[in-house]
This record gives sequence, C-alpha cells and structure tokens, in this order.
Amino acid sequence: MLNFDYHAPSRIVFGKDTQKQVGDLLKGYGIKKVLLHYGGGSIKKSGLYDQVIASLKGAGIGWAELGGVKPNPRLTLVREGIALSKKEGAELILAVGGGSVIDSAKAIAAGVCYDGDVWELYQDNSISITKAMPVATILTIPAAGSESSEGTVITDEENSRKYPYNHNLLRPLFSILNPELFFTLPKAQLGYGVADIMSHLFERYFTNTQNTDLTDRLIEANLRTIIKYAPVVYGNMEDYDAWAEIGFGGFTAHGGLFGMGREQDWGCHDMEHELSAYYDVPHGGGLAVLTPAWMTYVYKENVPMFVQFAVNVMGVDGSFRDPDAIVLEGIDRLRAFFKRIGLPGTLAELGIGEDKLEMMAKQGTHTRLSPGQTEKPLGGLKKLYWQDILAIYKLAAK
Amino acid sequence: MLNFDYHAPSRIVFGKDTQKQVGDLLKGYGIKKVLLHYGGGSIKKSGLYDQVIASLKGAGIGWAELGGVKPNPRLTLVREGIALSKKEGAELILAVGGGSVIDSAKAIAAGVCYDGDVWELYQDNSISITKAMPVATILTIPAAGSESSEGTVITDEENSRKYPYNHNLLRPLFSILNPELFFTLPKAQLGYGVADIMSHLFERYFTNTQNTDLTDRLIEANLRTIIKYAPVVYGNMEDYDAWAEIGFGGFTAHGGLFGMGREQDWGCHDMEHELSAYYDVPHGGGLAVLTPAWMTYVYKENVPMFVQFAVNVMGVDGSFRDPDAIVLEGIDRLRAFFKRIGLPGTLAELGIGEDKLEMMAKQGTHTRLSPGQTEKPLGGLKKLYWQDILAIYKLAAK
Repeated sequence: MLNFDYHAPSRIVFGKDTQKQVGDLLKGYGIKKVLLHYGGGSIKKSGLYDQVIASLKGAGIGWAELGGVKPNPRLTLVREGIALSKKEGAELILAVGGGSVIDSAKAIAAGVCYDGDVWELYQDNSISITKAMPVATILTIPAAGSESSEGTVITDEENSRKYPYNHNLLRPLFSILNPELFFTLPKAQLGYGVADIMSHLFERYFTNTQNTDLTDRLIEANLRTIIKYAPVVYGNMEDYDAWAEIGFGGFTAHGGLFGMGREQDWGCHDMEHELSAYYDVPHGGGLAVLTPAWMTYVYKENVPMFVQFAVNVMGVDGSFRDPDAIVLEGIDRLRAFFKRIGLPGTLAELGIGEDKLEMMAKQGTHTRLSPGQTEKPLGGLKKLYWQDILAIYKLAAK
Repeated sequence: MLNFDYHAPSRIVFGKDTQKQVGDLLKGYGIKKVLLHYGGGSIKKSGLYDQVIASLKGAGIGWAELGGVKPNPRLTLVREGIALSKKEGAELILAVGGGSVIDSAKAIAAGVCYDGDVWELYQDNSISITKAMPVATILTIPAAGSESSEGTVITDEENSRKYPYNHNLLRPLFSILNPELFFTLPKAQLGYGVADIMSHLFERYFTNTQNTDLTDRLIEANLRTIIKYAPVVYGNMEDYDAWAEIGFGGFTAHGGLFGMGREQDWGCHDMEHELSAYYDVPHGGGLAVLTPAWMTYVYKENVPMFVQFAVNVMGVDGSFRDPDAIVLEGIDRLRAFFKRIGLPGTLAELGIGEDKLEMMAKQGTHTRLSPGQTEKPLGGLKKLYWQDILAIYKLAAK
C-alpha cells in the first residue's frame, strides 16, 4: 500500500424529497445569494426548477441564473458564468443537473477566484488554485460522480480539446441526491451513467500496486452492486430502491476513498475524452466501447489482477488452470452486461469511423507536454503510447 | 434504504513517516499553539514523543501538555484538560495515542467551548453543541475508530458510569496513521483493536432495514479484510502491509459511510460499556465475549440477515436447507477467530463473576431515561430489555 492523503469533505444529503431542503441548507451555511446553474429544459418540465425556486424563496436566498449547459460542457458558457457571478455578487454556485452541469459549476467556481483565464487551469494541471467559490449540487443523473469528486472536465469547443482539472477545493460543499429525480431520465442515460460509474471504479481498481486488499474488496463490492441493480432499473425506470443503490454507488465510486494507497490508471477516461472532444459522443457510451478493448489489449501486463476481476466481479469460475480463458470470459461478460443495459459495443455504433483514429491517438499523447517531453503516455497499469491507443481504438472499431 | 445525511470531513494522512508531518500540517491550518494530550510512557519509550516535539518545534508551533490518559478515559482528567487549554490558550487538541486519548481530547475540545460542565453532554445526548475546538490525532492503536468518527466515550470513574457523546463537530480536523507506530503494541492490543473495529462494522451491519445492498457488501468487504489480516499481524507484529489493511479498515469501519441509509444496532457496545464501567476491562475484550452471545440470542429475529453474515463474511457454505445450522456455524467460526487472535471467550476469562450481572443489565436500561420513560431498551435489530441483557450476559458468562 502506498502512502496517501485522503480528504473528501463533501456532505451528501440523500433520499426522498431532499431537494426541498436546499434553501434551508444554504441558509445554514450563511449563503445569501447563489448562481443557479442548469442545463436545458428538463428541470423545468419535471417541476424540479420550481421546487428549487420555492425552497430558495422560502429561505430568503437570492439568485441569478444561467442555464444552457450541454453534455461535454463548454468553455464559452463557463466564461459567461464567471462574468455573471462576479456581476451579480453570487456567493455559491448551485448546480442543478448531472455531471456536465456540476463540472461547469466547478469551472465557474475556480474561475471566479483565479486571476488568469480559467482555461489555463485545464491546459496546465500543475497550477494549484488557492481559493474557489463553494459549489452545491442537486444531482439529476448518477454518473459522473462530480457531486463528491474534486474533478471537472471542460471542452474548448472551438479547438476540440476536452481536459480535466482536479483540486480538493472543488469538492462540493454539499450535494443533494434524491433517487426519485432519476425516474424521468431517458433510458439511454441509465447505461451512460452506469458505464461512467463503473469506469471510475475500474480506473482505480486496475493497478500494479501490491497489498491493496481492502480497497480491492471495496471496489468489487461497489461494482457488483451496480451490476446487480443496473438491469433492474433498465427494466423499471421508476424503481426507487434500485436507483438508490446506483446513486449511492455513484458517489462512493468517485469520492476518492477507494483509490487511496494505490496507483490509478485513467487511460480509458483519457482515451474517451478524445472521442467526445471530436465527435461529441456521450462519455459513458465512449467508455463502454473502449473499456473491454482496453482490457483485452493490456491484461497480459498483470494477469492476476484481471483474473481477480473476472472471478470477484464478473462471477467467472476461477478454479481452472487457464488464466487467459478466465480473463477473456470476464471481459466477454462485461461486454454482455453493457449490451444488456443498452450500451453500444463498437465505435461504429457510436457513429465514429476509422479516419480520425490515428489523429486522436496522437492528440491524446502529444498535448500538454512537460518541457522537453515529446510524448506523454496515458494510463498506469500499462503506459499507452499513441500506437497502443491506436491499437485499442482499432480493437473497438467494429 | 433510509434517507441519510453523510458528512465525514476528517482528513487522513496515511503511511510511513507521516507523524513527522504533524508540525507542517498544523501550520497549514494556521494553528499556533496546541494542547498535546497522551497516555502513559509508551510514546516516550518508542521515541514518538520526541518526533512530535521536533516536528512542532520545526514548524514553530507552541504547546502545553497533559499526559496520563488511561484506557476507559476518565472525566477528572478531561476537566483538567479543559482548564489547562483555557489557561494556556491552546487552539487545538493534539491527541497522540489510541482511542482513549482521542476520546479524551474530543471531550476537552467540546468542554472548552461549552458553558456548562462537560459531563452534561454525556448524560443528556440530546444537547447539541454548536462549537468545539479542533482536534488532530496521531494514532498509535487501530481500534476505536475515533480518528475519523464523531464519537467520544468517557467514564465517570467516581460513579462507574461510561457514556458516549456524538457530534459531527468532534470529527478530527486531520488524523495521522502510520502503521509502523503499531509495531510496538503489546500483542493483546491487536485482538482488542480488531474486536472493536469488527464491532463497529457489526453494529452497522445487523439491521432490519431492507434494500441496503451496497452498504451490506462494503461492510462485508471490510470485515473479510480484517479477518484475513488480523492473524497475519498476530503472527508477526511488525508486518507493515497487514497492519496497513487493519489501520485503513479501522477508520473506514467507523467513518460513518457504511452505516448510511440503514438502522443501526449498538446493543453490544452499550452492553459492553457496563462491563468496562464496573470492571475496567478492555473494551475490545468485552465486545469479543458479548458479540457471539448476542448473535446467538437475537438471530431468530432476522434469520436471513445472519445467514448472509455466515456465508458472506465467515465463509460458511450457504447452499444447504438449514438456515439455523448455517447461522450457528457462522457464530462458531467467529468465536474461533477471536480465540485465534488471543481474545477471551467468556466473562469468566475477563474476571467478571455473575454477582453484578443483573445490576449491570438494569443500569444499562434504567439510566438516561426520557421524561415518563421507565425503561430504555438497548439495540436495534432486537430491542433489548434488562431481562434480555441479563440472558445475554449469562450466555457469555462461562
């Protein structure tokens, strides 16, 4: 086990009707005015917007508002939010939506307190902010884990760049999770969300670090629960108890705890960011396609790790003396699971052809270089250079 | 799953040599003077005291000090610490030790900011403090989980009363866990610590709440890891990797997350507090004796819960159609596990005779009553009245 420094102070208010507490919660923290940040019309159609406004009014909290966040949230809207927050004197960004809205809110929260242009943080992750405006969230899609994480991912849509920035100051002050708010999601969002949650666990799980039993077991527990309940929700989008397991599992997956003391990977996330930067595909869709391909390509680097995954997570019988067969059966079962909840299996199904694969593989490894560096490999369990990434993209192609 | 409000902001700095960071960590929080609180001579003998002083000096942090905390920490020393903190102008209580030292530090932290006498909080848990001095810890025994919990347990030694108090403001600002510091513990402490950690998981695990799969699985993962590594440490008290799993597992067990969304029990803890209040026995020793007796007495209230425990935690084959036999085999295996790591199996082994059992059973249920209440049962899965507690004590007697 490696040394670690764990700090995840976000408060999670979970359960039925909890969105109605938002005004009182903000008041408890002494907040007087917020920037209310959201996406399209869905929160208005569902009535959530009205509930939030009623709760703010009831607690005497003022607000300015900025809607219009799209999936793969845009830098231009972030800049608009920074200007608006300053002009309106907002003291907190209240994100009502999914990961895109929360990521956009975090970018605004960092940008308001940062002297330069906010995109500098995403271009150069070595910049450590010293201050950020607080963010609170009401989650409408369990997926990105942004409700408890330190991360934000923003897309510079003019230059097709999609970059993350992580800082502990960006963890939300509090997040409200009411599984009832997930009932009205389009069915496809369930799959995208589940693929993202599982990827947050995979990125932490697959490691060459030894002596990590507790976190291995906790991650497996989280994965098995998600795998059990995702098809239940897929069959009935209004199953509260099944959604509750997925919502709870979404914030534990990305809260940080389960990655402590171990090297992490993040290769699939980084490879996916290229897909969604160029093709604007759903992040979870890209992950569902790339993850089994990545596993197939890298597993020989650490066969016991992948045998453990196949047996403990995918339920493969591990008592036979053919580890490769055990691993490949585990990967097949993961593919079948993704398919069962409506996720795509190939880049072709995502509408991605083969013409840009090499270019994307090189983009992923040839930007944001350190001085003197000519290529920055992705991943951890196996370092992925552009040829590796291209091979994985090709494995995932069709 | 029940609604919940989760907030565990303690920072955990974990790993080799981390105790040497204490001065710089405190400086990072703007602290200038601390009350250094510890137990007997062991931290002086081991050299830890000198390392802490060197780190404080190096960072320019002043300190006053108060040693002398004993297991089942005493109210009189807490009162002394409150007076000393005020006199010396300490800004934080730095606890260097195990759960007793940390619990004592939390009591001082609450008491310094509380207008009445600190014992009032323990006598009447409905009093909610609004302020507490921050606490930081350097853990020397993984057991009580006090390094990440909101709880403190103090003994009024003059009246043989041992009571808990819980408040989120009492969670440590940060806790330093270096498994190397556990190498010099007496072997008996390993068993006591493990019994306490496991009990923190059992108290959350055994519930009648339905639809709690994620937390069920996470608790089982934690228990299985502890059960795997405790005998390894018992065989080699200097095994860093095994201690690391137990140290990590100790703070996750009592950090709060795994009890969210479910009714909890705490019957064994409350029954044990009577034993250690009257007989000053080690808390973990009392728990090791009472827990299997409690399981035997209550399991028929919720057989599927105890079958799940026997199969998923104790590894009993669950594929036979005799649930009682499965449960009893699970309890037997738990007894055998406790014995294997040197823990007592009966009250007699703890030096506790049968003469005070009825009196203790009544004390546990007839104090701290609400107005109009004549008896306050303990526990959750099954409400335990004094006759139940006496029956459990008798089952555990010899």
